Amino acid sequence: MLSESDLSRIAVVLVRARNPNNIGAVARAMHDFGFSDLRIVNEYAMPLEGARSAVDASNVLQAATTFANLAEAVADCTLVVGTTAVGERDLHHPLFTLSDAAPKILSTANDQKKAAILFGSEKTGLSNDELSHCNFLLTIPMFQHAGARHPSMNLGQAVAVCLYELVRGSDVARPLAHSAKPIEDATAAEQERLTALLAELLEASEYTRHHPANSTLADLRRLVLRLRLTRADVPVWMGILRQTLWKLRN
Amino acid sequence: MLSESDLSRIAVVLVRARNPNNIGAVARAMHDFGFSDLRIVNEYAMPLEGARSAVDASNVLQAATTFANLAEAVADCTLVVGTTAVGERDLHHPLFTLSDAAPKILSTANDQKKAAILFGSEKTGLSNDELSHCNFLLTIPMFQHAGARHPSMNLGQAVAVCLYELVRGSDVARPLAHSAKPIEDATAAEQERLTALLAELLEASEYTRHHPANSTLADLRRLVLRLRLTRADVPVWMGILRQTLWKLRN
Repeated sequence: MLSESDLSRIAVVLVRARNPNNIGAVARAMHDFGFSDLRIVNEYAMPLEGARSAVDASNVLQAATTFANLAEAVADCTLVVGTTAVGERDLHHPLFTLSDAAPKILSTANDQKKAAILFGSEKTGLSNDELSHCNFLLTIPMFQHAGARHPSMNLGQAVAVCLYELVRGSDVARPLAHSAKPIEDATAAEQERLTALLAELLEASEYTRHHPANSTLADLRRLVLRLRLTRADVPVWMGILRQTLWKLRN
Repeated sequence: MLSESDLSRIAVVLVRARNPNNIGAVARAMHDFGFSDLRIVNEYAMPLEGARSAVDASNVLQAATTFANLAEAVADCTLVVGTTAVGERDLHHPLFTLSDAAPKILSTANDQKKAAILFGSEKTGLSNDELSHCNFLLTIPMFQHAGARHPSMNLGQAVAVCLYELVRGSDVARPLAHSAKPIEDATAAEQERLTALLAELLEASEYTRHHPANSTLADLRRLVLRLRLTRADVPVWMGILRQTLWKLRN
């Protein structure tokens, strides 16, 4: 079972990211999905204050650590995974789709070890030298448009998709449906009462006399069942039919 | 089986999106995952030319259609799905997590019918009136930080995650690993030859004499197998051992 502390052992490493807003978007995705270890590899200091896109993710940005080179950034990690859009590059690494790679990353974190997922610069991705630090590569499956160069994802979107895949099967991230009422289907008995009332109404409205072929109780029952009513809606419809029936009779 | 034309029957509908760059990011995610039907609902015209984030997605942006109200935007759709971060709102709709909602959306498209996925404005999401157009709601599971307000996603990231989930199980979007060589594991025979050469080297280096307890052929075989060598790496290691052996003997 995936826990919050497991997520803290999975680092997102941005290598030569150039746009502070992209870094902010990465921090926001990490915050959204419960990740906290952001590492930034850059030869020069990044002005992170300007990361406007980091709404609510100031905790992640403030805790971010910076490194002058990749080897130092991943020194404490047991598993280092590179991300790639693949394309024409000759790969010297095992390559997995995101959904195949995710369990491997999670199992490292689950074993109390650290894993790093590397994202390259917006323009060039990860260099061959950077890829050589990786145990394997992962790629997000994308659509190959005929005749077009292979697509590449926006950095913030790529990180969001990767982190989503890591938590999607767990209950660490869970829908916040505190106030949502569970939707209950109407019971057969409720639908039967509604059907009976409908029959009464159609009799009263003389629909039955004009359309005898569609008005057997079985016809009407099927008609009602096809509505797939929720339980909460049954009394509403009963009220509408009763009111109409009353009006017809008065 | 999901096809490209199925994806063309799934519309992304942005309701009151305010930031042209967010719209550009949405178009880019659609392009990346093979979707083409972008619909924009706004009371006033959006200056889409400024959408700098729409790298490579000009086809999607140019084909985007605009509507003055939501009812017109979804008039041709059989299934209308709203996205929500949930929170405190009282929901009157069935709510599914993204991974549970995706098969329902795909099956509509697969049945040659149109489906729409609605995304609300960056600040307020979808209004109750807008939600009333929906057959059901979907939510992306997110992490609830203790004491914090419920998280909400960046619009471009939310769309990317939803579209990824729709295609992740199919082969419409596929890793572009044209030039990646499949990784083959070394055969037992190859590992056995390497083990034999290693034994020869350890004998020549007198390691065997100093560590007789770790130097049986079985010990060395297990040691080599634990390396989990790829087939391509075996000749490399054979070369290294042979060279070392030659050096020791000369």
